[in-house]
Amino acid sequence: MQVLPKALVEVIEALGDLPGVGPRTAERYAYYLLKAEPSVAERIAQKLSSLHSGIERCQKTFALVEKGQTLSPLYTDPSRDKKIVAVVAESFDVAAIEKTGHFRGTYHVLGGLVSPIDGIGPEQLHITELVKRVREDKVKEIILATNASVEGESTALYIQQQMGHQKVKITRLARGLSVGVDLEYADQITLGRALEGRTLL
Amino acid sequence: MQVLPKALVEVIEALGDLPGVGPRTAERYAYYLLKAEPSVAERIAQKLSSLHSGIERCQKTFALVEKGQTLSPLYTDPSRDKKIVAVVAESFDVAAIEKTGHFRGTYHVLGGLVSPIDGIGPEQLHITELVKRVREDKVKEIILATNASVEGESTALYIQQQMGHQKVKITRLARGLSVGVDLEYADQITLGRALEGRTLL
Repeated sequence: MQVLPKALVEVIEALGDLPGVGPRTAERYAYYLLKAEPSVAERIAQKLSSLHSGIERCQKTFALVEKGQTLSPLYTDPSRDKKIVAVVAESFDVAAIEKTGHFRGTYHVLGGLVSPIDGIGPEQLHITELVKRVREDKVKEIILATNASVEGESTALYIQQQMGHQKVKITRLARGLSVGVDLEYADQITLGRALEGRTLL
Repeated sequence: MQVLPKALVEVIEALGDLPGVGPRTAERYAYYLLKAEPSVAERIAQKLSSLHSGIERCQKTFALVEKGQTLSPLYTDPSRDKKIVAVVAESFDVAAIEKTGHFRGTYHVLGGLVSPIDGIGPEQLHITELVKRVREDKVKEIILATNASVEGESTALYIQQQMGHQKVKITRLARGLSVGVDLEYADQITLGRALEGRTLL
């Protein structure tokens, strides 16, 4: 016998798609929303609906921008130094670095890291655009702000090889990051120190 | 400077309404959904939208039922014994008991527990409906399946008082050691109850 109404079962199943959310947690969320005012569930639904449609990618940095913007304010802002580029794997790494308040350069989002196991090769990342940008913007320094993981290191190495013939200083984040810790979960102080102490490759 | 697009910030804020979800977890969910196919977020949005509209309350047991149903199949099913009623605080307690497969009676959902601190008095719970039901359905036994908490105990006591003049057996769930819990880690009250309610091997 179906004990729970279909609408509830479907919400539990759908919430189970969130990362790290098992059936028990999904149930807890669903019961909470059912007990709360309908407006709470409705607000989440509405915001989720317009998540993708309200967001675009900066054509230069590939960071997230508002719908209709072609360039990120983190790139166009005159106070940002276009000759210093922090290269990150994902767009959320930008937010993590911005929170430190230690960085006045611009960003370049690769869209992932080289990972043969997951079938991600360097050609799927925005690396050719980075090389082009280094030339066009006369970039003096690129900071490889990738995770301290095998994928992060391989990607940094690959980028270094691609830059070989260009006059650009290549640095990477200081070994303040613990091996195995994702950049997005690093605390602000650690990440800030890692930025300050970046080392020449 | 607003680093994240508004659509993303709003999703993070909205997901932060879920119980036990802080800003970091909400961010993690939001980034995951942003990286995933738009259909994943869209499916959650759609299911959340129809959560409340697809669910009603059984007019007899106050358990959750499909939209348009007036009585729960757990009540109308001829194989369920209407003369045995498990009284629970919330509708999701019904699902928990059903999962055991040990119960063939029916349910009565109170809609909460007596809790003066939270301003919940017995008149806000479906207790008068329970008294009426006991009389109308000639209920032989009500099982007070409430939590082993102060609120659970107070509610059980109040219901017992209300039933005082009716010929109905009132039982409550056995209190004792949870399966898999080490005796040395059990709290004193639980252990005391387990001793009091010891059963013959």
